[in-house]
Amino acid sequence: MDKIKNNKLITKRSEDFANWYTDIVRVAKLASYSSVKGFVVFEPNGYAIWEKIQSVLDAKFKETGHRNVYMPLLIPESLMEKESELIEGFAPEVAWVTAGGNKQLNERLCIRPTSESLFSDYFSKNVSSHSDLPMKYNQWCSVLRWEKETRPFLRSREFLWQEGHTIHETQQQAEDETKTMLGVYKDFIENYLAIPVITGLKTESEKFAGAEYTMTVEALMFNGVSLQSATSHYFGQKFSKPFDISFSDKESKKQHVYQTSWGMSARVIGGMIMVHGDDKGLVLPPAIAPQKVVIVPIMNTEKIIEVAKSIQDRLNSAGLAAYIDDSDKSAGFRFAESEVQGIPVRIEIGERDLDENVVTVVRRDSGEKEKVSRDVDIVEHISGLLDSIQKNLYDKAKLRMDEQTFECHDMGEVKELMDTKQGFIKGMWCGNHDCELAMKEIKGLKSRCILSGAKPIDNKCVACGKPAEHLVVWGLQY
Amino acid sequence: MDKIKNNKLITKRSEDFANWYTDIVRVAKLASYSSVKGFVVFEPNGYAIWEKIQSVLDAKFKETGHRNVYMPLLIPESLMEKESELIEGFAPEVAWVTAGGNKQLNERLCIRPTSESLFSDYFSKNVSSHSDLPMKYNQWCSVLRWEKETRPFLRSREFLWQEGHTIHETQQQAEDETKTMLGVYKDFIENYLAIPVITGLKTESEKFAGAEYTMTVEALMFNGVSLQSATSHYFGQKFSKPFDISFSDKESKKQHVYQTSWGMSARVIGGMIMVHGDDKGLVLPPAIAPQKVVIVPIMNTEKIIEVAKSIQDRLNSAGLAAYIDDSDKSAGFRFAESEVQGIPVRIEIGERDLDENVVTVVRRDSGEKEKVSRDVDIVEHISGLLDSIQKNLYDKAKLRMDEQTFECHDMGEVKELMDTKQGFIKGMWCGNHDCELAMKEIKGLKSRCILSGAKPIDNKCVACGKPAEHLVVWGLQY
Repeated sequence: MDKIKNNKLITKRSEDFANWYTDIVRVAKLASYSSVKGFVVFEPNGYAIWEKIQSVLDAKFKETGHRNVYMPLLIPESLMEKESELIEGFAPEVAWVTAGGNKQLNERLCIRPTSESLFSDYFSKNVSSHSDLPMKYNQWCSVLRWEKETRPFLRSREFLWQEGHTIHETQQQAEDETKTMLGVYKDFIENYLAIPVITGLKTESEKFAGAEYTMTVEALMFNGVSLQSATSHYFGQKFSKPFDISFSDKESKKQHVYQTSWGMSARVIGGMIMVHGDDKGLVLPPAIAPQKVVIVPIMNTEKIIEVAKSIQDRLNSAGLAAYIDDSDKSAGFRFAESEVQGIPVRIEIGERDLDENVVTVVRRDSGEKEKVSRDVDIVEHISGLLDSIQKNLYDKAKLRMDEQTFECHDMGEVKELMDTKQGFIKGMWCGNHDCELAMKEIKGLKSRCILSGAKPIDNKCVACGKPAEHLVVWGLQY
Repeated sequence: MDKIKNNKLITKRSEDFANWYTDIVRVAKLASYSSVKGFVVFEPNGYAIWEKIQSVLDAKFKETGHRNVYMPLLIPESLMEKESELIEGFAPEVAWVTAGGNKQLNERLCIRPTSESLFSDYFSKNVSSHSDLPMKYNQWCSVLRWEKETRPFLRSREFLWQEGHTIHETQQQAEDETKTMLGVYKDFIENYLAIPVITGLKTESEKFAGAEYTMTVEALMFNGVSLQSATSHYFGQKFSKPFDISFSDKESKKQHVYQTSWGMSARVIGGMIMVHGDDKGLVLPPAIAPQKVVIVPIMNTEKIIEVAKSIQDRLNSAGLAAYIDDSDKSAGFRFAESEVQGIPVRIEIGERDLDENVVTVVRRDSGEKEKVSRDVDIVEHISGLLDSIQKNLYDKAKLRMDEQTFECHDMGEVKELMDTKQGFIKGMWCGNHDCELAMKEIKGLKSRCILSGAKPIDNKCVACGKPAEHLVVWGLQY
């Protein structure tokens, strides 16, 4: 049977998590490997999810006073070098353009790995007075980092993202912006992607090259591995001084601006797969699903198609994106295909359904089937169902994250735990980088973040036993 | 006065057209030169226009059955070389990446100047049966061509565009697609950008490298220079054979697909400036203006602000994007600023207006002012005014294009005309490339297109006098 054949293409999650992931990406036609080493193609189903993410997030950026711009793709080496930590951090992973128009270039140009230097250069030429501030910009683009491994969405040489860049008169305003945007990301990832997260500060060794500090949104995948899902950086004056981004303040005194940047990439699509997906394929949270409902006519009779179209029209008019799959594949194949692609709700309409004056409604998250009377208001019913699916996906993921969050008080406990389990490990940290290195020895554990405003669980460092104030969450990472 | 000061920043169009253009780009804050030679920054006002263009055009692409994807930024040299005309056409103007991650690459990669080779490579791996066809894809991205000169929007090393790529079972279907998308562009440019155009076939020497033929949308700027505004290419099997994009047809026989591509770039923003702009700055057609109405409170009294907000709310609810400029600059400065930026309608509200129970409404296109009673339905009134502005902009441009279109029958007439005038020159062409070269000797005249379905104006070639069947439009070009 087609259905079984289709499902067979996906490795069981419990057998091989990594293959299960790449199988879903391939079978749901989200992305594919290209002939360009390290680069993937975003196929229509994957790109549609990114477009939906863009539209929701872009509206939130605009509501919070940001405007979109577009900066050059290439950065001259001399500009990149102006902020020394930035070039040190990124130099090993950039791609260099050395020839253009059949001529060797005098100065090589790197393809942007991130655009702080371009924005700083722009700001320095376009700010003169305090009345020009704040400037709150964002851009949607792709960036390049010369990664060695490729995993669609999670890691590739080119990735799609947005990067916000803002400058402010005062430190307070810039720090507020850093927190505000972290909040925008947390809200988006929890309420649209249905992924529960933790947030906090990155340690010195894990922060962004060139930042005073980095705040992060971290999520836990089904297999207990962490995914850094968005970051928000406070730069202070670390760029504004070398780039001379200055303005005359109200007393006509020259001051340097305070700066931020913040970004989220398409890797969150990978996050959704690894949090919500199952052995049948992708499971999309209704709030971010480009198509929320698929209607499958069991047979293409005139009567069935008429009912299907009428339901589709009503759902679409109410903003519940619905499509009809009346292709000539078997009903079983079409069911399986909508499941692989993670469509939240399926409405099946067969001859018998019509005889009984019902349609059959199937939830993707739980697989539950119900007969819904055609006398019921279908828009209201499906709308309620979508809300319930959204909530259920979040709740299930939250419960799992809580179950996979452990407390450890010394290295013995960490090692023992890591022999059998994976997840977030809460452990105190003294602030010493050596202790991070010691933790890393245990299967590669890294500090995910210093939890903001969390109560200490101990008073000594999990690694060295010395006095410790920071409650850090440790984990394996993608 | 501020107002005069602001206007002084723009060179008069009649004095120096090129400087007038770059002044508008700068003063309206659409784009600025970056520190990266040959690259410009899209500033918020310019990028907002591009976003609006994207949203309208993207909806039209989806209505006509296309889906968005994203292909890699870089193309290996070997892949680029598969279609020989393509590499010959683009090799002189691509940028080459030769190092990545601190290592010299084995094969150099070019930054995409266009993505036919990437799409062809993708299609070849993802099509097997006639039931997979057609595949109709589009991508929004930037491309690089190593231009020598830079003019914001019109010519720069990196530009923003969209490129559609489709494959079909039959020649007929692919040719229909080529025509359909040309029609989508023509409709968009005429009805949204309010720019009248001519359409037709490019000659052999002007067609896209690798195409069987290229159809083009050509517009005429205020100064009589032509702007190629969008193109739609029919490839036949010129890519599908070298890339082996093949499928098994209904008789299980292997066939190669028929292919198209079509593109429009942000240069049309430059086109709008050069068609509608005036000495006060940009003039945006209402259908594409990100902000359609600016409301200027002459003074920030509580009563005036209350009225302004109430009008803004009503307009926004009706989808007529309106904003209030209550900054502390003088009213005159704010008027001038909205004019520079091309906002279609300005509503001024002063104390005296309120005493008279009116608001003052000013059209950007004609500068006409009127007092509108506050008893009038403001949404209906402004909506009508915006329609009238849209129509007026198109009509004025159409009249000018007609006045700047000339017929010539021999080289003497062409030379005489070009001594005093610039515009579209209709002249017959025998089909010989030497005659195109002869025309080029006259100040650089180029064939814009072979007019589709036009009546011949003569039976002999304008250049050589030999028998000629094609009615060609010739012109200077950006």
